[in-house]
Amino acid sequence: MNMKLISGNVCAPQGFKAGGIHCGIRRNKTKKDLGLIVSENRANTACTYTLNRIKASPLKITKNHVSDGYAQAIIVNSGNANSCNIDGDEKAIAMARLAAKTLNISPQDVIVASTGVIGEILPIKPIEDSLPALNDMLNDTDGMDAAYAIMTTDTRPKEIAVEFVIDNKVCRMGAIAKGSGMIHPNMGTMFGFITTDTAINTSMLAKALKETVDDTFNMISIDGDTSTNDMVCLLANGKAGNKIIDNTGENYDIFVNALRYISEYLSKEIARDGEGASKLIICNAINSSSIADAKKIAKSIITSSLFKAAMFGADANWGRIFCAAGYSGADFDPDKVDISLSSKSGSVDVCKNGLGLKFDEEQAKNILLEDEITVVINLNEGKYNATAWGCDLTYDYVKINGDYRT
Amino acid sequence: MNMKLISGNVCAPQGFKAGGIHCGIRRNKTKKDLGLIVSENRANTACTYTLNRIKASPLKITKNHVSDGYAQAIIVNSGNANSCNIDGDEKAIAMARLAAKTLNISPQDVIVASTGVIGEILPIKPIEDSLPALNDMLNDTDGMDAAYAIMTTDTRPKEIAVEFVIDNKVCRMGAIAKGSGMIHPNMGTMFGFITTDTAINTSMLAKALKETVDDTFNMISIDGDTSTNDMVCLLANGKAGNKIIDNTGENYDIFVNALRYISEYLSKEIARDGEGASKLIICNAINSSSIADAKKIAKSIITSSLFKAAMFGADANWGRIFCAAGYSGADFDPDKVDISLSSKSGSVDVCKNGLGLKFDEEQAKNILLEDEITVVINLNEGKYNATAWGCDLTYDYVKINGDYRT
Repeated sequence: MNMKLISGNVCAPQGFKAGGIHCGIRRNKTKKDLGLIVSENRANTACTYTLNRIKASPLKITKNHVSDGYAQAIIVNSGNANSCNIDGDEKAIAMARLAAKTLNISPQDVIVASTGVIGEILPIKPIEDSLPALNDMLNDTDGMDAAYAIMTTDTRPKEIAVEFVIDNKVCRMGAIAKGSGMIHPNMGTMFGFITTDTAINTSMLAKALKETVDDTFNMISIDGDTSTNDMVCLLANGKAGNKIIDNTGENYDIFVNALRYISEYLSKEIARDGEGASKLIICNAINSSSIADAKKIAKSIITSSLFKAAMFGADANWGRIFCAAGYSGADFDPDKVDISLSSKSGSVDVCKNGLGLKFDEEQAKNILLEDEITVVINLNEGKYNATAWGCDLTYDYVKINGDYRT
Repeated sequence: MNMKLISGNVCAPQGFKAGGIHCGIRRNKTKKDLGLIVSENRANTACTYTLNRIKASPLKITKNHVSDGYAQAIIVNSGNANSCNIDGDEKAIAMARLAAKTLNISPQDVIVASTGVIGEILPIKPIEDSLPALNDMLNDTDGMDAAYAIMTTDTRPKEIAVEFVIDNKVCRMGAIAKGSGMIHPNMGTMFGFITTDTAINTSMLAKALKETVDDTFNMISIDGDTSTNDMVCLLANGKAGNKIIDNTGENYDIFVNALRYISEYLSKEIARDGEGASKLIICNAINSSSIADAKKIAKSIITSSLFKAAMFGADANWGRIFCAAGYSGADFDPDKVDISLSSKSGSVDVCKNGLGLKFDEEQAKNILLEDEITVVINLNEGKYNATAWGCDLTYDYVKINGDYRT
């Protein structure tokens, strides 16, 4: 596939601007808490939303606004989730209206997103007061301010951009994401805002996003908690000038390849920056008899608190990996399972045909002391593979969440 | 119902003896690691087992041994799970054979149980060498040595006994249990060994155990991990001399009432003593439209890492409770939900009709600083209730599991 990494994020594609500012929702004045991402024109848009039964007001309003397949701007705040509030819908509508007025576009073309504490009333005045300044700051060269504005317990912003050629036209795709706790996506949790100047119709855009999110964002877990607020939005404004992608085929594949690269990169970055995490854990479930079983096994393993704590302690306690596969609900024969652990310090086989192998504990410890660990569980039954991403469970996770609100 | 608490445990019913000893499976010589529970005669027996797809050898052997509905003894070790070992079945059979020889009973009447690290070869010689001494120590007055012998990361033994009258005969039921980590039972996880001198046939015994375990042991979660090893065994030797219970009715109800009391008590004790736990969390999901939904909601809440960490921090972050209900998979209307938090220091309403209430943070903090917290989530939709038990997520959980094997 033709594709290369370029610098930047949501502003990398033609016709997109972004900015971020501290408006005052968060008490800490050094932290940005309001972001805007704007397309020059109405962009074809696809979104995925949390499957949590409880949906925050911004999601309901966004769902309504993008029901026509278009959006032109994203307004997003951190520090308050605007979820489970009596005036939540009203406030989310007001955010869209205020952004639309500032940008001189239709409120119906504004996506609204909020992240932070659930059940606290969102103050609208700081947003209203700061929008003119934020509008002045919008620029098409650097979306980092927006990337900072959506962070909560994240320790660093997440951004990426790529370039590819479709129909002899240079197309770009860029993204920012946030997410560090309450991460166990089920059809698009956390925030991922992805922009592209590729011309692609809304049905193909929705299809591409759905299949990509299922294999990437939906395969992360930090703590098994699926949030009420989060979503992935993909805006395509067509500025690259390629012949519009309106069907599957080579051009669609190039587009999906780029989207998958970006989504997988951001998924790994989110898992790596999980609340309190000291390492990224990658689990490959291979040679399963079905893709669904492979996904269940990989996700069950990276979700296990016992396994995650063992990874924090660099303890090759593989029984916990096998145990988590066993209760995953997946269909497999335990007597065929092989397990290995690896990192840049090497690889060690710990289980063969469902039975423990003798291995060098010292070597295993050294492998697990690295900051990126790969677990391979080979079911030896079929041809389907799946990957899930997670992180270790540390003292800092407990610390961060023992008193999140203060 | 006629029933009263009495002192003691598995030895409280007539015709049962027990003992425990340090045989050498565990390195720490101050920790007992081999236990025996013996009935004078073959007892009608019912067991429930983990639903983990990976089943440890002792469970397979036990399942075979109790397939005729009888058992006379339980041999159990801690310090090694005898799970995922090449010679696991062989070793479990050897344990039964050695115990049977010592006790002069049939190996087919021996239940075998092991708990500890998965995937390490179980040494049989310490068991063989210690059985004569253990046999000499068996007594019918004090089962505490057996209660100690089954402990792993438990900080204290769990025991209980009750007395009730059936058919003008005094019947007793006693139990010991263990369980502190890898606790998220699905049809009988952890160990619960329950003895009774009540006369009851095997089909009624199995029915009583199944319905009780579903509402008690299966409603605990410490870390969401369902173990490969654990089981609940109920032995009824008939020594009380009551007319045998062979059908539902008043006598069966008295029996189930006692069994439920014991099982609920032990479930709470296991949750309270969860790895690293500083408090017991009780979640009542009430007025649900179905029992299955009530159970899903209660269990999802006490399983949420974010909620558990908030309880550790005495932070009334009720959004995490609501969020966990939302992703539980249960059917309910978020707009009808009320949530309150209580302890012996008082009670506070935090959510009404799915919306946050203003509450006194100071008061909420004081309530949550206690060591037993009750969450009530009222679905306001139907008449079904369920209770689940869990504990908080603490630094010590991470510490204990970061290096469990050393």
